[in-house]
Amino acid sequence: MTQPDATTTIHEGPQFDVVRETWGDREREIVRHAGSTAVVAVHDGAVVLVRQTREAARRPLLELPAGTLEDGEDPRESAQRELEEEVGLRGGRWTELGVYYTSPGFLDERMHLFLAEDLERGEQDLEEGEDVDIVRWPVDELEARLGEVEDMKTLAGLLAFLRRR
Amino acid sequence: MTQPDATTTIHEGPQFDVVRETWGDREREIVRHAGSTAVVAVHDGAVVLVRQTREAARRPLLELPAGTLEDGEDPRESAQRELEEEVGLRGGRWTELGVYYTSPGFLDERMHLFLAEDLERGEQDLEEGEDVDIVRWPVDELEARLGEVEDMKTLAGLLAFLRRR
Repeated sequence: MTQPDATTTIHEGPQFDVVRETWGDREREIVRHAGSTAVVAVHDGAVVLVRQTREAARRPLLELPAGTLEDGEDPRESAQRELEEEVGLRGGRWTELGVYYTSPGFLDERMHLFLAEDLERGEQDLEEGEDVDIVRWPVDELEARLGEVEDMKTLAGLLAFLRRR
Repeated sequence: MTQPDATTTIHEGPQFDVVRETWGDREREIVRHAGSTAVVAVHDGAVVLVRQTREAARRPLLELPAGTLEDGEDPRESAQRELEEEVGLRGGRWTELGVYYTSPGFLDERMHLFLAEDLERGEQDLEEGEDVDIVRWPVDELEARLGEVEDMKTLAGLLAFLRRR
C-alpha cells in the first residue's frame, strides 16, 4: 500500500483540507494538514508554556509553544521563528526529539517535536488578534504539575524531557 | 468564551464532521470528532501494540490499541471492549492516566488514555476488513525501542508507563 486508487477533495480550507479516498473496496475520509512543530522550551530553570484560546476546546488550553508548517519550510527554522514570535525566546541548543502523527486514524498531520535548552531572551512579536499568556513551570515542579496537562503533545514532550534529565 | 456566535456545518462524514464557526470577528474551521480511547496494555511482561494500515500515513503504523467512542459510551467500557476485540486481552487492573486533546488547534478530539495491567487472554474478534498485527514489546526493552515510535499517543503512553515503574 502506498497510494489510494482515487482521491476526491471534498473541502479546502485555510488550516486543513478534507479528501475522500478509495483504497480497494474501502472508502476513507482524511483530514490533510501541512504538519506542525512543538517545542519543549527551557529558559532560566523553567519550561515555558503558552495558554491560549482554543476554539475547538471552548476555552484556553495550556500547551507547548507550537505552530503550523508553511509549504516547504524547514521544521526547525519554523519552530525557531514561532518560538521567538510567540514567547520571545531565541538561540540556545536545539534537539529534534522525533516526528509524530497526532491522530493517524483520520488525520495526516505529523508534528516535529523539539527540545530547546539554554534559550535567550529575544523579542515577542504576536500577530494581530493572537492572545497568548506565557506560563513558566520551574523544572523542579514539572513532575508535580503533569496532572494539569490536557494536551497530548504537551504530555509527551514534558515526559520526554523529564526522562532525559 | 464558551460558545461561538454562529456555526455552519460544512461537512458530515462517518468519522468526523467539519464546522465553520464565528467567534467575534474571527472565523475558525474545526474538525468535530466523538472522542477516542487508547490503552497501554501490559500482559505477561510486555506492552502489547498493534500495527495496522493507516491510510492517512500511506503505510502501517505501530500504535497503542485505540478506538473511537460511540455516542454516550463510557470511555473505560469502550476501551475494554476494543482491547478484547482488537488484541484478545481482557480483565486486569485499569487506571485512567488522563484525557488529552490530540490536536486542539483545529480538532476537538479528546483521547482517554488508560493503563491496563495484569491482563488475561480473552478472544480476539476483528471486524471484517480489519487487519491488525499484534506486536509485543517486553517491558525491559521499552526504553531502547522508544525511537521506533511514530505516533504521539503511543510516545506519551509509553513514557507515562515508564515513569510509573
